[in-house]
Amino acid sequence: MQPLDLNKAFTLIEPGPVVLVTTHDGQGPNVMTISWTMVVDFTPLFALTTGPWNHSFAALLKQRECVIAVPGVDLLDKVVGIGTCSGADTDKFARFGLTPVPSTLVRPPLIKECLANIECKVIDIITRHNIVVLQGVAAWIDGEREEKRTFHAVGDGSFIVDGGRIERKKMMAAKIPPGV
Amino acid sequence: MQPLDLNKAFTLIEPGPVVLVTTHDGQGPNVMTISWTMVVDFTPLFALTTGPWNHSFAALLKQRECVIAVPGVDLLDKVVGIGTCSGADTDKFARFGLTPVPSTLVRPPLIKECLANIECKVIDIITRHNIVVLQGVAAWIDGEREEKRTFHAVGDGSFIVDGGRIERKKMMAAKIPPGV
Repeated sequence: MQPLDLNKAFTLIEPGPVVLVTTHDGQGPNVMTISWTMVVDFTPLFALTTGPWNHSFAALLKQRECVIAVPGVDLLDKVVGIGTCSGADTDKFARFGLTPVPSTLVRPPLIKECLANIECKVIDIITRHNIVVLQGVAAWIDGEREEKRTFHAVGDGSFIVDGGRIERKKMMAAKIPPGV
Repeated sequence: MQPLDLNKAFTLIEPGPVVLVTTHDGQGPNVMTISWTMVVDFTPLFALTTGPWNHSFAALLKQRECVIAVPGVDLLDKVVGIGTCSGADTDKFARFGLTPVPSTLVRPPLIKECLANIECKVIDIITRHNIVVLQGVAAWIDGEREEKRTFHAVGDGSFIVDGGRIERKKMMAAKIPPGV
């Protein structure tokens, strides 16, 4: 994985892909599947919604760190599997054959098999909605993976895979932040 | 447009499409382009991030109502155009040839040309992050439109169009809420 400029990291999340979020509870890493995320600022700030139904939630609240990892569609069945079992009784990295890679600024690991990873610090928790606000502090991208398409959860058990890309850079010029 | 069960409305936003958000300032409707959204609950609750840089923000804060409209990719250039001009000096419905349709429970209009529309009430504003939390109160879908693909902003001036769909309903059964 190669470092990615932090000012480009929001472009990994803005399209709304399903992501994996790693945490560390002080004893070991865990990983959860999340599709409720959004960008909050280009700096970058992100929000995600989760709650006590996720075993990782306690570690996220306590350790206040996580990694957002963006899987390609080649990982779809692992991602669905991760979303439908619990870290309470499962070592998900072992079970799903994912490789934790040490992060540089946080304790939760990067995931080697993902297209990109963003190391994040929790900067705010809006407890009444279970919204967690994250500051991205380092970002990594793997340009070598063959499958570059991400996928999007519909919420009814189906997923939409990335299709074609359309460029509107000229029309959008005034709205694209510097360095992106 | 046909009514859509409210308990299915979150499935319109969960995949992360670019959306249009209509507001009404008491004098007339306006519309903005937003890609920073997420689902917060199945009930449905949504969050979006915007701020004073959007002319619609004042109307959203004051009137506490909006409509989230989901455009197909046939509307891409209108959506980009809406995102790069201001309601301060432009009647965007007229300029972009969009048809406002009366909502049932809120004052901001539905958009006839969109694939789906969700009438929403603002239930919370987290001002320190410009995060607005919305309760969906009615939803509408147009099953007749030829172009059913939505699109996702990358944030660098490019957009990803929906590709194929993969079903994992059996694997996901325990995670799909009732009625979806």
